[in-house]
Order: sequence, then C-alpha cells, then structure tokens
Amino acid sequence: MQRTNYAGLIDEEYLGQTVTLQGWVQKRRDLGALIFVDLRDREGLVQLTFSDDVSESALKVADQLRTEFVIEVQGKVALREAGVNPNLRSGKIEVQVQSAKILATAKTTPFNIDDNVDASDELRLKYRYLDLRRPVMQKNLRIRSKITAATHEFLDDNGFIDIETPYLAKSTPEGARDYLVPSRVNPGSFYALPQSPQLFKQLLMGAGFDRYYQVARAFRDEDLRGDRQPEFTQLDVETSFMNQSEIIALVNEWVASIMKKTVSYELKTDEIPTLTWQASMDRFGTDKPDLRFDMELIDLTSFMQNSTFSVFAKAVANQGQVKAIVVPGAADSYSRKDLDKKAQFVERFGAKGLPWLKVTDEGLKGPIAKFFNENEAELLAATNANVGDLLVFAADQASVVAGSLDALRRMFAKEQNLIDEQKWAFAWIIDWPLFEYQPEEDRWISAHHPFTMPNEEDIELLDTVEGAHQAHAQSYDLVLNGYELGSGSIRIHRMDIQEKMLQALGFTPEAAQEAFGFLLEGMEYGFPPMGGIALGLDRLAMILAGTENIREVIAFPKNSKGSEPMTEAPLPVSKQQLAELELTAPVYADTKTPNLSEE
Amino acid sequence: MQRTNYAGLIDEEYLGQTVTLQGWVQKRRDLGALIFVDLRDREGLVQLTFSDDVSESALKVADQLRTEFVIEVQGKVALREAGVNPNLRSGKIEVQVQSAKILATAKTTPFNIDDNVDASDELRLKYRYLDLRRPVMQKNLRIRSKITAATHEFLDDNGFIDIETPYLAKSTPEGARDYLVPSRVNPGSFYALPQSPQLFKQLLMGAGFDRYYQVARAFRDEDLRGDRQPEFTQLDVETSFMNQSEIIALVNEWVASIMKKTVSYELKTDEIPTLTWQASMDRFGTDKPDLRFDMELIDLTSFMQNSTFSVFAKAVANQGQVKAIVVPGAADSYSRKDLDKKAQFVERFGAKGLPWLKVTDEGLKGPIAKFFNENEAELLAATNANVGDLLVFAADQASVVAGSLDALRRMFAKEQNLIDEQKWAFAWIIDWPLFEYQPEEDRWISAHHPFTMPNEEDIELLDTVEGAHQAHAQSYDLVLNGYELGSGSIRIHRMDIQEKMLQALGFTPEAAQEAFGFLLEGMEYGFPPMGGIALGLDRLAMILAGTENIREVIAFPKNSKGSEPMTEAPLPVSKQQLAELELTAPVYADTKTPNLSEE
Repeated sequence: MQRTNYAGLIDEEYLGQTVTLQGWVQKRRDLGALIFVDLRDREGLVQLTFSDDVSESALKVADQLRTEFVIEVQGKVALREAGVNPNLRSGKIEVQVQSAKILATAKTTPFNIDDNVDASDELRLKYRYLDLRRPVMQKNLRIRSKITAATHEFLDDNGFIDIETPYLAKSTPEGARDYLVPSRVNPGSFYALPQSPQLFKQLLMGAGFDRYYQVARAFRDEDLRGDRQPEFTQLDVETSFMNQSEIIALVNEWVASIMKKTVSYELKTDEIPTLTWQASMDRFGTDKPDLRFDMELIDLTSFMQNSTFSVFAKAVANQGQVKAIVVPGAADSYSRKDLDKKAQFVERFGAKGLPWLKVTDEGLKGPIAKFFNENEAELLAATNANVGDLLVFAADQASVVAGSLDALRRMFAKEQNLIDEQKWAFAWIIDWPLFEYQPEEDRWISAHHPFTMPNEEDIELLDTVEGAHQAHAQSYDLVLNGYELGSGSIRIHRMDIQEKMLQALGFTPEAAQEAFGFLLEGMEYGFPPMGGIALGLDRLAMILAGTENIREVIAFPKNSKGSEPMTEAPLPVSKQQLAELELTAPVYADTKTPNLSEE
Repeated sequence: MQRTNYAGLIDEEYLGQTVTLQGWVQKRRDLGALIFVDLRDREGLVQLTFSDDVSESALKVADQLRTEFVIEVQGKVALREAGVNPNLRSGKIEVQVQSAKILATAKTTPFNIDDNVDASDELRLKYRYLDLRRPVMQKNLRIRSKITAATHEFLDDNGFIDIETPYLAKSTPEGARDYLVPSRVNPGSFYALPQSPQLFKQLLMGAGFDRYYQVARAFRDEDLRGDRQPEFTQLDVETSFMNQSEIIALVNEWVASIMKKTVSYELKTDEIPTLTWQASMDRFGTDKPDLRFDMELIDLTSFMQNSTFSVFAKAVANQGQVKAIVVPGAADSYSRKDLDKKAQFVERFGAKGLPWLKVTDEGLKGPIAKFFNENEAELLAATNANVGDLLVFAADQASVVAGSLDALRRMFAKEQNLIDEQKWAFAWIIDWPLFEYQPEEDRWISAHHPFTMPNEEDIELLDTVEGAHQAHAQSYDLVLNGYELGSGSIRIHRMDIQEKMLQALGFTPEAAQEAFGFLLEGMEYGFPPMGGIALGLDRLAMILAGTENIREVIAFPKNSKGSEPMTEAPLPVSKQQLAELELTAPVYADTKTPNLSEE
C-alpha cells in the first residue's frame, strides 16, 4: 500500500482522516487489550493505538511487535485521550490502527535508537545503519544535503557549469601525500586520487567554460586527526575574468542562499567584515578569528618597553611583543591554581608562563601587580579593563604571542559563556602572504598553493627568492565562527609568472616540467585571468549542524585509523588480484569468495 | 573591467550600447586601417571592428592580435555595414572597439578551434583544454551539466536526500574487477573504489532515510571498449516502501524534467511503453530495443515447420526459431553481393548464412524463392510484406536469431534512413529473468545484481538452484533510442532471501559472510522494503548531445589504453612512495620533483 503521510508530520489538521504509514517501532507499551506503539520515520514519531475495539487482528499484530520492527499500518487520526506530548508535532493526536502488517522483524539492537546514545564511537560506526536512524544524524545529513541542493541551485542559476574532473588522475606534488591506484593495463604505473580539482579547474578556465563548479571529492593520505578524513568534499568553483572583490561578492550571495535553505537565516552579506591577514593576526592572533565575541588582543608592546617587569621589557627588547586580552567579569572566576593550569596549557605554543592581573575595587591584584603600581591607571586605560575583569598577557616572539592568546581567547570565551551560539559570524581574510616559513623544516612553502597569483605590484618581487618571500597574494579565505570554511585565490594564468613561482618553491625547470608541464604548456595557448574558491562541505555541514566532530555529518566516515568499521575496509586482497597488477604486498587474503563476473 | 555581456549573446537589442567583452580571438582580418576580429566566448561569436576613426590605440592593439589571444575590449554596438551573418545571433551587428587590451598571448594551436576539427583523437586529448574550446564540446558539457542540475532540482523538490557514500570502500565481488587503493596506515590492506554505491544505498534505506540520491562516480577495471571508461557517473536513487510501478512513475517524472531542461522536450510520460523482457526479446531480439522505428521481428517458426527449405524446417525441428524482418522498400537497394556481406556480418552472432527474399511485381525473388512457390501469399500475409520490400530471415537457436536480427534491424534502419532522429523513444523493460546463463563460462550469474528481489511468487523457487534459475525478478531497465539508460530493481531486504540468492550464485555461507556479512547482519535489524535505479549520466548525456562516443561528453576522458594523454596518467611513482605502502612494483620513477608539504 502507498504511504499517505510521514508519521512525524501528522497533526490535528488530519483529524478524522485515514492514513497509511510505514516505519519503525520506536517503543511499545502493552496494556493487554490496548497497545501503544510509537512509530518512527524520518520525519519523526506518531503514537499508534491498537485496541480490541478498533481491530482485533491489528491488536494481534501489535502483540508481536518489538523495537525496530518495520511495519505498515492503516488507521484513523484521532485526538489523544491522554498523554499529550507538547514536544512532538503529532503530540496531540494518535492513529487508531485498523490494520497492520509486519514488513521486517528486528533483533535487539546493540544500542538504542535515541539521540542520547550511550555507545562507543566504534560501535556506532560498526552499526552505522542503526546509528544513522537516530534523529540527530538524520537531521545532520539532511542539513548537508540542503547545502549541496542550495549550491546546485544557486550556481546553476548563475551560469555555472557543473563539470566532473577525473578521480583517476596524475600524482602531483600539491601538498599532502597522494592515494595511489595501481593500473593493471600499465603495470608499475599508478593513478593518484586528486587532492583537489585545482589543476583541472584551471584547465577548464583555459578551455573557456568561464564559470565552473563541482561538488568534488578530494583525497589526502595524511595522518588523521579529529577533523580529518581520508576523503572529503569540496564545493569547488572557478571563474574567468573576475577579480577578487567580484568573486567575494558572488560567494557571499551563494553562501547567503545556503544559509537560507539550511538554517532559515537571512545573511546580510554587506555586513560581512573583511580583514587583512595582518589585521586578523594582530587583533586575534589567528587567520581564522571567531567573531562571535570580542576580547581582541591589545598590543601593549610600546607601553611595556620600559616596564619594571623584566619579562615584558625583555620581550620588547628582543623584537618581541607584549599583548593582552581582557576577560570581562572573570576576575573572580579563576583561582591562582586555575591560572597556573592555563600557564601550563600555553606552553604548547612556546609561551614561558602566563602573566595575569585581576582588576578589583582595590586596584590590580596578582603576582605581577606590584610592577604596575606606578602606571595602573594608564594600563587600565590602554586595555579598557574594568573592575572585575581578568587580564592575561603574552610576551614573546609574535608567533608565540599569537598562538597563546588566540587559544586563550577562545578558551576563556567558552568557559565564560561569552559566545552567542545563535550567531553566524562570517569574515573574509584577504591579502595573505604568498609564502610562509615552516620553521620545523626550515623552508618556505606556498601559503595557499603554487598557483596563487601575487598582488599585481608584487609580481616583480618574484624575480628573487628573497623577494618572493615578501610578496603578498590575491587570496582570500572565508571564515565562519572561527573555522576556515574555504580558501580561494586569483590564479596565475601566465607561464612566466608560474615558472617564477615554482622556482621560488624550489623547483628546477626540469622538475617543474615533470610535475606541471601540461599546465605550463596550456598557459602558452591563451589562458584567461581566473580565480575561484573551494568551500569545505564537511566543515560547513558540521558548523551548521552544531557539532564539533566532522564524523557526525558524514554517512560512512573512517575511524582514526583510516578504517571503516562496518565493512572493515581496507582489507588484504588475494595474491591473484595483486599479481594482475604486478605488485607484491607484505600480506595476502585467503579469500573464499567466488569471482562473480557480470554486467 | 567587469564584463557587461557575453559576446555570443549580443544582438540588435543592444544597438548603441557600450559593452565590455572578454574572450578569445577566433579570427582576424587585417585591412590596414580597418581590422575585423571575431571574438569568441562560451556563448558564441561577435564581430569586433577596429578602425582609425574610432580609436587609433585600439587599432594598434588589434594589429598585434593573433588567433586565441585573450583580450578585453570596450566598444559600441552598431549595425554591420556589410557581411551580415544569418547563422549568428550577433550576425547583424558589430562592436566598434574604443579600447582594447591583451590579457594573454597564444602560440599557434596544434589544431584549429573549430567544430570541424581535423586532429586525431589522441592529439585532441593531449590538448584537451583547446579541444574543449570548440563550440560542440562546450555544448556537450553544458547539456551534461543541465542533466545534473535538473536531477538535483527534481530530486530535492521530491524529498530525496543527497548523501555521499565512500569512494575508499571495501572490495566486494559485485561484477567487474575493482580498482584498488593501498593503505599506508595498514600496509598490505587495500581500499577498493566502488563499482557502484549499491550496498551503501541499501544500508541508507536500512538507516531510514527513505529517499536517497547521489550523483556518484563509479569505477570498473575492465577492458576498455568504445563506450567504456574506467570511471563513470551514475545518477543514483533509492527509495523505501515503494513498489516497482511507483518507482517507475517517479523516474518518468524525473526524466521528463531532465528532457525539458536539456533539450526543451515535453516528454509525455504516459506514452512511454512498458515491455516485458520476454516481449522485448521476441519482438526486437534485444533487451534494449530502439523504438524510433518499427521493423519488428516476425515469428515464422510454426509457419516454417514443414517448409521445403530444409534450413528452416531443421531449425524448427531442433527446437530453434525461424524469424524475419521486413525492410520496407529496400528490395532494390541491396544487391546479392551486398546481402552476402550482411550474411558474413551475422556470422559473429553464430548465424550460418542469411536467407533473404525480395518482394517484386512478379512475386518473390532470390535464391530461396523457389521454396515458397506454394505458399507465397501466406508468407506475404504472415509478414505483411509488400511489393518492393526486402525480407531477411534467421533460423537457429533463439539467441542466435535474436542477436542476428537485432543487429540487422538496426543496421538496415540506419542504411535506409528509417530512424526519426528527432524522436526520443523511451521504454521500460520489466520482468527480467533473475539469473542468466553465461555459455562461455558455463555458469549462471545475476541478470542484474545479487541484491535483486525475485517476483513475490518466485521466492520459493530460490529453494533449489535449478528453481532459482527459472525465477523472474522485480527489475526494470529504462531504454532510450536503443541504449540502456539505467537499470533498477526492488532489492532484497530480508536476510533469508538474500542468503538463498547468494547460495544460488555459488556462495558458500562462509563466502557470503566474508563478502557481504555487514549487509546480511544489517538485514536482521529491520530493513524496509526498498528499490531504486541508477541512470548512466555519461550515456544519457551522449544521447542528448547527439553523439555516439562517450568521450565527447566527458571533460577529461581516458583513451582506449586507460591513459589520460594530457597529464600522461597513470605513471610510475618513486620507490620511496611505494616503500611507504610496503609494496614493490616492476618499475619505479626517478622523480625530480621536490616534496612540497603544505596545507
């Protein structure tokens, strides 16, 4: 029989109607001649009542029902006589079942299908099809789907062409490690799964498509962290003949359409702030500031240069910085011991200690208060601190100061409930350095990627490697609530500039040719000015779903070991399978599976 | 400067307006003080005129222009004084250029950017970014994009949830060979790139999403033929609680929305015929009949059982068939020699010879005419053949007859121009056998895939292997113009039926567990009745674009050796890269590329 309604969407409007429903048994209460069943489908719950009065045969079916059985029922919508549930759309009604049928039985599930699941992450992944039945997971994946639907609609309406680029591609040194795919036809040769469609989309601009987009999977064989997955999804766009501000304006409209369709939020695009990278670092100590709250970093470097507190004076003397944040009203919230813990925490950023002050009715308090007897008023004026506030300081090289105070700022904001969770704080970060120095490896790498166009006036800086390291880029990141949502840039469309860029990255002409020869050659045949961006779908979905774990918005994610506990992938394969690829591996599977061949 | 218009869209409506255009130089005619340039962008061409009168500096720029230079111009739209081109939207106007700027220069391209390209396929793929500039390729990929846009719109509007399934998945014996991806974290273990999202979408129905869709890449490591690519794209949907006819009705509406958006065709879904598999085989000799023309197979088996032509009588006696097609008005078009060639052609299907008759004013003519002196009128009545028609026969086992006459039917239709190229002939083929016999390997395989639900009344046939081979399936193929567009079925949602099915396919219980254990286990926790379909995007785009080569609708396809001539993928990788995976290969690359690491 055809379903007439989703269970979760029935309400008083349907009173008296006969409905056909299909779904899962969430709960069953047996009162003998009367059985209540909560029926669940993707839209929610409805209460079914089975009784002698209405149908003896249906009551008999109800008698056999257990949790997670799949059933089909037909019945009449009536007002509940008791037990009205104000939290459900269907909370005032019930369906009095006239006929019922079991479509599938179910064993007892390893955990309850409930938002408050008490199972381990590993168990949830092993029984992912059960985990995904939980309303919160249904909601999360529907938000994700709405993001892509809004994206397709907006970009198609705006003349973007959805073009698929290969997943079996060439290994290029774009950043992380590639996943390789051995070729059977060319033994010893490998495809690589793309780390992004970057090169292909530039070639598509060279091909004159003008506006490209793709919801594209990307692959990186990196060490996995909480928010990393071996495969992830990019909302990838590229345009020709548009400059940075035109692209930003377009992306704003696109993102506004997503916010509207997913969380019914009217984004005022003209209120999205644009910060230079430098300003963002100065004011927040990070290139992805969380603008849902203030607590900006206050630069006290010149204020402290003659401080009697030698830690501060020395930091200034060593070309370092002294900065502070003011945590409003937090003076009484943190004991000396609490703040010792924070001092320990910031050691990971290279900070040696955490100087702090409390502003009280009786002036500054704390271990270093004595150094500010003379200029207390000036310090309070410089920091805008008021009675009851807590001041914490960092005094060190710029990178240490930034790292420590960024982390503390976010930590204090969370602890002090200063974050407006209803807020969607977007920001654009522009004017990035073209290169960034990697102290661990003592070398310079692209801040974005090797195809990023320098600022017009910085192009000639590329003539020397040292100059190149001073150059700034036409690149722009979109930030939301302290997360980097996406990263874009104007691309290099001229071979001479691209060659210089690769040279500055340490490529010999020969190596550049080997890695990117096809792109460099393409640029000789009239490539247009171009630029684009890629938004991280997983992260966007994660933020809009209100979770902090990327796995909560992916249907079948990998665990922290890169495995998928349900199917147990990856697994060893048979010796025969590898022999076809002319590869040898450390272990082989002794597989029992017949080789099906079919089309 | 911001573009005001696409070149190809300017017409008389814009007379007198100043426009800013960006694009490629298609052609340049230099008359000294007057230079004509055809400017191309993705929407088409417009004629630019550069003259002394309007701008000396622009004329100087025009002087340097060569084919495929990228330029930006500003100018006024005016009526052409001469050379009106009725084939162009912009054919009555020209843009009198006031200022011009070269954005990129170009070398002479290896082939002309023109629909009538004279380059080899290999050269076109090597310079794919140039090949894609050709208007026909632009059109093809835009049709493809419109198909996906229509799909997203229709399915989102109809409550389908776009859910991404993993590309790094488990190797399962579903049919073709898997592409493998070695895992670095688990050396010796491999992911497999999925041959379809089949298992995942069934699990998603088990998870209660009710309606799923995905534009999904799929991968098969098969020997490549003309219309096969290592990676291809499926428009993949799955639903719960719907039966076959409900799903077909839904797909009809979806396909109608695609036809409207791509080729402005109003598909009358209630006029789409539904044929059983058996009827299709009987009437057309194929399970994907081209219904743009008639010429159905005529069964003459009982008519011929006592034929004096022993070939026919023997075929009937041997439990074979005698069938014919009537090629209307073709009697004079084929000589005896032509028909000998056709006889040779059908040998590949196992046919021994090609009996034929011509219907003339003077009765039947041809080598076997003498056998029909007695019952000429009856034969003509049985075949509905008229004077001027050609009759060709096949007399053999059913599969040989079907193969030969299907091929001949399509061949004659093409040669005789019987195909209405304006027609979109959809059809549903239903009631397939559950299994099909593979004579080459002397075994039975799934006609669709191992998860296909048998017809309700055939479920008990699965109890024996022999019985299973007689069962029919709840599966349905959508056919368009003689191509299989997509293949769908109701799936098995109960473990007991699934186990029997795998058993009939030759799986021991142990092997079934190894290959599909996670699915079988899932079915024990309440899986709903479900069904779906996957349409082949590449093939659909190919048909709608009016080409017969799948590569013409893929941006960066592989060649027949599985290589991508532009990037040269696949390629050997370094010994170090493989050492990380603990693999050894027959060859290694001596790579010169520095290892960039960046985020």
